Amino acid sequence: MPASDSIPSLQTTLLHRRQRLADLVGCPVVLWSGGRSPRNFPANTYPFRASSHFLYFAGLSLDHAAIRLDNGRMELFMDDPTPADILWHGAMPTRDEIAQQIGAEAAYPLEQLTHRVVGAATVAVQDTGTRYAQAQALRRGLFPTKRPEGLDRELALALVELRLCHDASALAEMRRAIAITVEAHLAGMAATRTATQESEVRAAIEAVMIRRGATPAYTSIVTTRGEVLHSDRSCNRLQPGDLMLVDAGAETESGWASDVTRTYPVSGTFSPTQRDLYDVVLAAHDRCIDYVHSGAEYRTLHWRAALTMADGLAQLGILKGDPESLVEQDAHALFFPHGIGHLLGLDVHDMEDFGDLAGYAPGRVRSDRFGLCYLRLDRPLQAGMVVTIEPGFYQVDALLNDPERRANFDGVVNWERLEEFRDVRGIRIEDDVLVTETGSEVLTVALPTDADSVAQCVRGE
Amino acid sequence: MPASDSIPSLQTTLLHRRQRLADLVGCPVVLWSGGRSPRNFPANTYPFRASSHFLYFAGLSLDHAAIRLDNGRMELFMDDPTPADILWHGAMPTRDEIAQQIGAEAAYPLEQLTHRVVGAATVAVQDTGTRYAQAQALRRGLFPTKRPEGLDRELALALVELRLCHDASALAEMRRAIAITVEAHLAGMAATRTATQESEVRAAIEAVMIRRGATPAYTSIVTTRGEVLHSDRSCNRLQPGDLMLVDAGAETESGWASDVTRTYPVSGTFSPTQRDLYDVVLAAHDRCIDYVHSGAEYRTLHWRAALTMADGLAQLGILKGDPESLVEQDAHALFFPHGIGHLLGLDVHDMEDFGDLAGYAPGRVRSDRFGLCYLRLDRPLQAGMVVTIEPGFYQVDALLNDPERRANFDGVVNWERLEEFRDVRGIRIEDDVLVTETGSEVLTVALPTDADSVAQCVRGE
Ligand SMILES: [Mn+2]
Ligand SMILES: [Mn+2]
Repeated sequence: MPASDSIPSLQTTLLHRRQRLADLVGCPVVLWSGGRSPRNFPANTYPFRASSHFLYFAGLSLDHAAIRLDNGRMELFMDDPTPADILWHGAMPTRDEIAQQIGAEAAYPLEQLTHRVVGAATVAVQDTGTRYAQAQALRRGLFPTKRPEGLDRELALALVELRLCHDASALAEMRRAIAITVEAHLAGMAATRTATQESEVRAAIEAVMIRRGATPAYTSIVTTRGEVLHSDRSCNRLQPGDLMLVDAGAETESGWASDVTRTYPVSGTFSPTQRDLYDVVLAAHDRCIDYVHSGAEYRTLHWRAALTMADGLAQLGILKGDPESLVEQDAHALFFPHGIGHLLGLDVHDMEDFGDLAGYAPGRVRSDRFGLCYLRLDRPLQAGMVVTIEPGFYQVDALLNDPERRANFDGVVNWERLEEFRDVRGIRIEDDVLVTETGSEVLTVALPTDADSVAQCVRGE
Repeated sequence: MPASDSIPSLQTTLLHRRQRLADLVGCPVVLWSGGRSPRNFPANTYPFRASSHFLYFAGLSLDHAAIRLDNGRMELFMDDPTPADILWHGAMPTRDEIAQQIGAEAAYPLEQLTHRVVGAATVAVQDTGTRYAQAQALRRGLFPTKRPEGLDRELALALVELRLCHDASALAEMRRAIAITVEAHLAGMAATRTATQESEVRAAIEAVMIRRGATPAYTSIVTTRGEVLHSDRSCNRLQPGDLMLVDAGAETESGWASDVTRTYPVSGTFSPTQRDLYDVVLAAHDRCIDYVHSGAEYRTLHWRAALTMADGLAQLGILKGDPESLVEQDAHALFFPHGIGHLLGLDVHDMEDFGDLAGYAPGRVRSDRFGLCYLRLDRPLQAGMVVTIEPGFYQVDALLNDPERRANFDGVVNWERLEEFRDVRGIRIEDDVLVTETGSEVLTVALPTDADSVAQCVRGE
């Protein structure tokens, strides 16, 4: 990790980012931060988080603000706090103080924005209220974020180019998010020793995030039903024979994410069958990470994972046939139905608001093939990208007991042998990996992945 | 607390609620649950929570669902999970299973709703996407939730009448929310013993909520800057001389809220000045609760609190004059600028989506007077209502150092004496109180309010 004195100041970082934007986009750019989303009534909102594109250039999660970027210059538009704001929310920095903090060259009340948006490109934000304000100010319709056109598409492509590879400040933020996440996972493992229910483990994990001033970057998955890929509840009781799957990542105050998964035995000891399958997933994980380098095709990583899984499952007698032909038939996808990972940055699936514009290289489109339709990234890797590597093995009833699929794969699956692995519902091992010029750096390396070390963490040894 | 066998089943409760609605509203009623609000990209949403009006009649927090209530009959409209839903989110109950669970008389796919909405009244939900779907289905514009008209206003008034007073099932849920909240506050007090920062206390509090399968009903306030009424960050370091103000309440899975505040010394010992002002706030709290009974005017409670505060501050030499005339001049509001409380139910400010329609009796409007403009409730109390009682004392710079206000109150404030109470930034004591036929029941009684007991909890004695 670079010493903190090698990380430029916030102002320098933001200036550099908008200068690079100016090299890519000829027109002015106006980015809105977005507003608070109401939960059950207008004053009771979800915790605010500014739009990622705004955060990239403004650095602070301001609500009801906008920035205008033109030729390397930044103007900030926001209103000063009212007396009622100050009564209810305390003394807040003024517009001018914030402008100084982020190095904006000028600052104006929000209403002045209408005079400064002619011919500007923008990105539609997520909250509908602000989207309406955007269209009003620009006096034109907005394209859906995942299908921008004209100037907005030019801007989107420029943002993708900028945000694909991370600068030193971004990496420092992500390292901070990851450090909190590692601490949170270790706390979750420790809590498992005495927990009787999933929610106790989840509480221990999220408490670390809260304690460190972070928030979950996405709904934490803390479950013994690992085969449910996006399980968002944690209400099951823990049984000693269960595997616990924890997919949880912290997000820093300025919006940078992490995304880490570990799977471990609730009892602190893998059963032989759990250990066998864990090692298959780990082999896929390790082989992928070994292959990460600038210039590597991410899709090739996915296939390496698939081949390693097919090979391992064949060696365990669960699949029958040679790995290449098993993968050709998508037999691995019966047990590994998702992609090997995705981009990571300000968003946990970075820039997924643009649909596949960031994840897929120009000219490439997502396959509808069973083994590929959930692959979120298909680009050659470049130094400075951060990607997740997250192979998994799952026994999903809906896939394995679908009569048609079962008939299709009858020749290649040994269903009786599979029966013996009943105590494995889901295993996933996910790390965050920085692509470097010479190979890669596993940013999440402080959290062990091998079965023995993971089990030791759970046992507290 | 009533034995659980005296609480009717969910089906019986919901049937009774819609039968009562039928007595009040002649037309069919269609209520939408709402959809997920995106955070930074569409697939990364805030935790879903159905609209309170939907929850009141449907009991479950279903997303993308609607119910049609007509003459005591309930139809459920929602789609069965798709194969992709099941892959990503696990096996889910079908529409028919959910209908059975909540006692709906019929269940249809969502698209069928368009044929069943003619002449129906509704409430606009909070998320804009669903609001658009509502208008589309009804083929008419929607009124803003806080200013409904026509049939929708009739429905809103009926919902207010129903939801003002709670049935046994609602009270059981609120008692559960409160039990979790009491445990959370005690955990926060215990964590304060070793904490160095506000966020550690907040983590301990919210961890209890997560552990118990609940969520915060609103953004927790956990701060040594108690004078910031809605402080939503917890990043200050704890100093031994600080008072910690914690305003945090759990919400149960079916959406019922609690709302509790305690203020205590970080060190476990009140300074004499802190203790003096704490006892003034506690006296206001106790005098209000003593007065709660069916038929009492809530506004009178507010004045009792104001008078008690004025009296106590005069006895401490901070205010000069007799309590009645001080309150007449709004001198108390310099230090107690908010209302004495609000309705509590499915929403922490119950039915505040209707503006003041629920909080203010017909014909009453909110005052713009300094001491009254934040009073959220102005109705005669009825048995079955739950209200908060939450007097406070704050030293808000923006109020106390405003030159005009300072000049106005120069004759009644002893500024030098006030100076001696510098170590008190903010104190609030908030309980949830059920109005009964004979008086009241403090639902939050398990969490002590008197200074000695509170300090003991912090010290762990
Ligand atoms: Mn991931
Ligand atoms: Mn309250």
